[in-house]
Amino acid sequence: MTVNAKDGANYAPLGQSKKVVAPGEFIFSVAFLDHGHINGQTNGLLQAGGTLKYVYDRDPKRLAAFCERYPQAKVADSFEQILSDPDTRLVASAAIPHERAQIGIQVMHAGKDYFTDKSPFTTLAQLEEVKNVVSQTQQIYAVYYAERLHNEAAWQAGEMIKQGAIGRVLQVINLAPHRLAKETRPDWFFDKGCYGGILTDIGSHQVEQFLTYAGAQDANINFARVENFNNPDKPGLEDFGEISMTADNGASFYTRVDWFTPAGQAVWGDGRTVIMGTNGVIECRKYTDVARQSPVSKIFLTDANGEQEIDCLGQSEFPYFGQLILDVLNRTDLAMSQSHTFKAAELSMRAQKLAESS
Amino acid sequence: MTVNAKDGANYAPLGQSKKVVAPGEFIFSVAFLDHGHINGQTNGLLQAGGTLKYVYDRDPKRLAAFCERYPQAKVADSFEQILSDPDTRLVASAAIPHERAQIGIQVMHAGKDYFTDKSPFTTLAQLEEVKNVVSQTQQIYAVYYAERLHNEAAWQAGEMIKQGAIGRVLQVINLAPHRLAKETRPDWFFDKGCYGGILTDIGSHQVEQFLTYAGAQDANINFARVENFNNPDKPGLEDFGEISMTADNGASFYTRVDWFTPAGQAVWGDGRTVIMGTNGVIECRKYTDVARQSPVSKIFLTDANGEQEIDCLGQSEFPYFGQLILDVLNRTDLAMSQSHTFKAAELSMRAQKLAESS
Repeated sequence: MTVNAKDGANYAPLGQSKKVVAPGEFIFSVAFLDHGHINGQTNGLLQAGGTLKYVYDRDPKRLAAFCERYPQAKVADSFEQILSDPDTRLVASAAIPHERAQIGIQVMHAGKDYFTDKSPFTTLAQLEEVKNVVSQTQQIYAVYYAERLHNEAAWQAGEMIKQGAIGRVLQVINLAPHRLAKETRPDWFFDKGCYGGILTDIGSHQVEQFLTYAGAQDANINFARVENFNNPDKPGLEDFGEISMTADNGASFYTRVDWFTPAGQAVWGDGRTVIMGTNGVIECRKYTDVARQSPVSKIFLTDANGEQEIDCLGQSEFPYFGQLILDVLNRTDLAMSQSHTFKAAELSMRAQKLAESS
Repeated sequence: MTVNAKDGANYAPLGQSKKVVAPGEFIFSVAFLDHGHINGQTNGLLQAGGTLKYVYDRDPKRLAAFCERYPQAKVADSFEQILSDPDTRLVASAAIPHERAQIGIQVMHAGKDYFTDKSPFTTLAQLEEVKNVVSQTQQIYAVYYAERLHNEAAWQAGEMIKQGAIGRVLQVINLAPHRLAKETRPDWFFDKGCYGGILTDIGSHQVEQFLTYAGAQDANINFARVENFNNPDKPGLEDFGEISMTADNGASFYTRVDWFTPAGQAVWGDGRTVIMGTNGVIECRKYTDVARQSPVSKIFLTDANGEQEIDCLGQSEFPYFGQLILDVLNRTDLAMSQSHTFKAAELSMRAQKLAESS
C-alpha cells in the first residue's frame, strides 16, 4: 500500500486487488496527464483487472514518468490514435479542467467511454453539451471523485449507511483542507478560467459525497462563499470556499474546502466527514489521525451500542473501479449513475456561481 | 475534578481553585434553580473565592438538593429577601429562559449585578429592555456561556489564538450535539415560548465562541435553519439547528446544534470546535475523544512545526469567574465586555428568527 502522504496532487492509493475481468478483457488507454490524479485512476482500473494499452500526452517529461510507472503502456503518437483504436473501450484522462469536457466529447463520439478526473467541467454550458452527447452516443462520462471512491473510510461509510448503521441521515459535514504547495503547481492551477473556482473543483468531491451519503437526488443551495484570504500573490487562486445545502429529502450539508493545510501536517489534508443520523454518528478521518497516526483511513462510529474505532486503511478493494469496468462491458449502471455524476458537478458549479455573485 | 459526563444539564466542572478574594470579600446569592447549570455557575464563583450567602427557589425539592450540595447556603424566604440583602453583590440564576431577563432587571434595579445561565434572553425585545436597564443602572448582566468559559480546551484555545498560535483566524466551526434525555426534561424544555428555539438557546454558546476566537465585533447571518427532524411527539422541540455567518472582519462561522447524541456515547455530547487560521489549525475535543477516552478536554494543534495533542482536562482555573468577581468589586471589564455578551445573544436570536421565517 503506497500513499504519497505529503502531496494530494499525487495521491494514488493502492487497494486490495479484486479483478473483475481477465487480462485483455477490458482494455483502456490514458490521455492527458496534467493532474497527478491520473495515477490513481490508472491504479484503480489496473487493480480491478483492466489492461492498459496506450498513453498520450503533449509533455514528453510527463509521458516518460508515466511510462516508468506503468511500463506496459505504449506511447501513442497522437490522441487520435487512441480515439481510433478498436481495442480501447475507455479513455482515462486528467487534463486541465476546462479542457476535460471537450476531450470527453471526442472520446464519446469515437464510441468509447470516458473516465475523467474531477472536476468534470468548469462551466454549466460544458455540462449541458456533455449531457447532450451522452444522450446521443449512450457512452459513459465517468468521474474520478477520488475523495469517496478511492478512500477506504469514505467508501466504507457509505456501505455502513446503506446497511442502516446510523438510521436516516440528517446531515453531512465535509472538511476538506488541501496543501497548497504553491511552488510545485503549474500555472493553470492559479488561473480560474482553467480550474473553474474552488467550489467547482474541490467542492465537487464534497457535493458528491453529500448526495451519496444522504441518498439525495438534488439539493437547494442555501449559501456559498469563495475567498482569496491569504494569497495576494496569486490573484487567480481561491484559497477558501464553503457551501451550505439542503437536500431534496431534507438532509443538511455543509462543506469547507481550502488550501490551508499547515506546513507541519503529516499528510496533505486532514479530511474529515461527519455524518449524523437519527440513530448514530460516523466520523471519517480520511487521511490522518492528527497527532496520532498518519497515514490512516478510519471510521469512528457512535450508535446506540457504544463507540467504535474502525481501521479501514488497506482493507478495501475500491469496488468502484471494478463496477465501472463491468458497466463499460455490460452497459450497466453499477458504479455511479450518470445523473448522480452530473448532479454533483452541477450543484458545485451552481454554488460557485452563487458565491461569485454575492 | 468531577464531571457528570452523561448529562449535559448537570455539567458542572470543578477546576483548579485560584481565589481572587478572601472569604467574605465577595458575597453572592443564588436564585431560581430551573436549570442544572446553576451548579456550574456556583462552583465557578466559589472556586474563585466567592462566598455564597442565600439561595432561593420556588421548588422545595430543588432547594433541598442545592443545600445538600452547598451546605453553606441559607434558604431565603423570598426572592425579595435576596434583592434587599445589603451583603449580596451578585445574584446567580438559572431560571426558565423566558424569565431570565425580567429577573435580571429586578436584580439590577436592586443595585446588584446579575449572572444568568445562557441563553440570557428568548426575544430581541427582552435584550433591548435589558440594554436600557444596564445603561441606567450601570450594573453587569453577565452570562454563563459555559461551553467556552467552563471548558478547559475551549478556554485554552482562546489563549493560544491570542498568542498567535495559528495566525489570523479565518474560520470557526462548532459542532454541538447534546443528549436529549427526553424523559428527564421538564415541560418547559419542550415549550418554545419558554426556551426560545434551539439557535437562541444552544446556538448562543456557539456564536459567543465564534466572536471570541475570530476577534469579531459583529457578523452577518448568511443562513440559518431549525428543524424538528425526529421527535414528532414533542412538537415544541427543535432537535436540529444550523447557522452560517460571516464576521465583520471576514472570518467564516458555521455551527450545527442538535439533540442527537447517540445513546451509546460516553458523554452528553461530542462537542468539537475547529478553528482554522492562516498558519495553523486548532481542534478542540471538548468533552470526549470518541472511542478513546472520556471525559476529556483536548486540543489538537497543527501548525508550521507539526502536530500536537494537548491534554487540558483539570489544568484550568477557569479564569472567567475570578475576572467576573473582580469586575463586580472594581467596576472593571475583565471577564467579558457587555457588548460582546449581548452581541452573541442578539446574533443567535436573529439567526433563530431568520430560520423561522424561511
